[in-house]
Amino acid sequence: MTAGSAAIVGTGLIGRSWALVFARAGWSVKLFDPSPEAADNAAKWIDAALADDVPDADRRSAVRRRIGISPTLADAVAGATHVQENTTEALELKRTVLADIDRLAAPETIIASSTSALLPSAFSESLPGRARVLVAHPVNPPHLVPLVEMLGAPWTSAEAIARATDTMTAIGQSPIRIHREIDGFVLNRLQAALVNEAMALVDAKVASPADIDKCLTDGLALRWAFIGPFETMDLNADGGFADYARKYRSLFEIMGRTLGSSRPWSEAAMSVVSDDRRQRLPLDAIAERQRWRDSQVRSLRKLKT
Amino acid sequence: MTAGSAAIVGTGLIGRSWALVFARAGWSVKLFDPSPEAADNAAKWIDAALADDVPDADRRSAVRRRIGISPTLADAVAGATHVQENTTEALELKRTVLADIDRLAAPETIIASSTSALLPSAFSESLPGRARVLVAHPVNPPHLVPLVEMLGAPWTSAEAIARATDTMTAIGQSPIRIHREIDGFVLNRLQAALVNEAMALVDAKVASPADIDKCLTDGLALRWAFIGPFETMDLNADGGFADYARKYRSLFEIMGRTLGSSRPWSEAAMSVVSDDRRQRLPLDAIAERQRWRDSQVRSLRKLKT
Repeated sequence: MTAGSAAIVGTGLIGRSWALVFARAGWSVKLFDPSPEAADNAAKWIDAALADDVPDADRRSAVRRRIGISPTLADAVAGATHVQENTTEALELKRTVLADIDRLAAPETIIASSTSALLPSAFSESLPGRARVLVAHPVNPPHLVPLVEMLGAPWTSAEAIARATDTMTAIGQSPIRIHREIDGFVLNRLQAALVNEAMALVDAKVASPADIDKCLTDGLALRWAFIGPFETMDLNADGGFADYARKYRSLFEIMGRTLGSSRPWSEAAMSVVSDDRRQRLPLDAIAERQRWRDSQVRSLRKLKT
Repeated sequence: MTAGSAAIVGTGLIGRSWALVFARAGWSVKLFDPSPEAADNAAKWIDAALADDVPDADRRSAVRRRIGISPTLADAVAGATHVQENTTEALELKRTVLADIDRLAAPETIIASSTSALLPSAFSESLPGRARVLVAHPVNPPHLVPLVEMLGAPWTSAEAIARATDTMTAIGQSPIRIHREIDGFVLNRLQAALVNEAMALVDAKVASPADIDKCLTDGLALRWAFIGPFETMDLNADGGFADYARKYRSLFEIMGRTLGSSRPWSEAAMSVVSDDRRQRLPLDAIAERQRWRDSQVRSLRKLKT
């Protein structure tokens, strides 16, 4: 796939990171935000982020030159191969913005929303070009974490999903296909299952928040960073997953009966977690710790390739 | 803490890996298995594993010299600071083996079981030395994955738990404290919550097993390898966890209502997963892929330190 041109509509946390993803893969990128200040801020953030993201100075300038700010939505989407929409998660706003994009973009342009909370059928039903509208939900921030969930409404064409998926692969992301509209899609449901159980364990005073975090950092995630839960089970029995399932299915069923994944978070558990976190990290140190996290993720991705 | 001496009782998959953990930390180690063949096999496995685990040849021979095979249980536990029991997960067998260890070991010796499935009160109640008996549940294999869950029965002394925890830290493991007897302890409950939801998503044809695995390898676990789920949430809102909880608690509650974490695995979903795994990796390639996984985990741990 040759590099195309992308329009980034809405240039907050997610939009600005998408701009970097497209531009470093050789795409030309136009930013548009109804607030001109927001687009300027995004451009400044990109300058700073590039220093960490692209070590080579010549390559860095080349990437930077591919990103421009458009004065209007019409200018941003003109000639775009792919539009990535990143506005606030409010249904009426999404409907309006996507209707504008659908009206202004050429018929062959793919229109993808970064939404994590809204289902594509909720905002695309009445659009004339609804067959080319879909969700491409990234993990924040996409320039560090490559997974993207690809999801259409019932009327989204298979061809649009295939083209958007190819685009994601071409720009270095890791697209997966969600076959049905479902709250939270897949990644956030997996996360919620584990997090809700973690909150229930804190609530029942089984373990401290910090000790539960270690179950991931010093346990489960050392494997999951390389092989997912299904491959983990597959490699943990001589006869592979079928053998594992025969041996352990009933244990998962027994645990399942008492898991707290469906329970709402209690006020008491939330206080325990919040107090524990603030004791370990003052609020004014969060930004520094975020930078540390990002540099670790970057090193891990280097290790993996 | 100065290096002590450890007795490893039961030298299968888990026991042999524990021997390596203690010996590379400078402890002298005695292996005992009712089957002399099993102890010999463990010693052979240790020779092979050391080549990957300890790059320096002189250090490797020193580690190897610290590990001996005992002809009897009495010989193994004589003078041991810490006994680590790793027999089959059958309650009557555990009761018998732990009664033998309790009878033969000096009163100040800590007796820890590697069990993942049995609660400490189930096998230690009638032992005269029950105050020094506890669970130290590792993740397989402990020489690669450091987390250890520390858990006593109601009659286990605080001092025994503290000493066993210090031992785990001293030999380079990452001990966490489980404050209550609960099926699956903590790590396996967190894993079950996520895995059961993953099986339910396969069952509902929402996503393929391979795409679900990518949600971890290319998404969630890139962070969880460095910061656990609580710290992840803490760093994802300007005001830390309290701010995150205010904003997103209701979304977790909405997802929670439809999560499949409590549902038993369906036959259909198990077939889909098994067929998908066998298409990606033939059974006779599992051992090679396990070696790859282990070398990746080793590199990740190096990156983290």
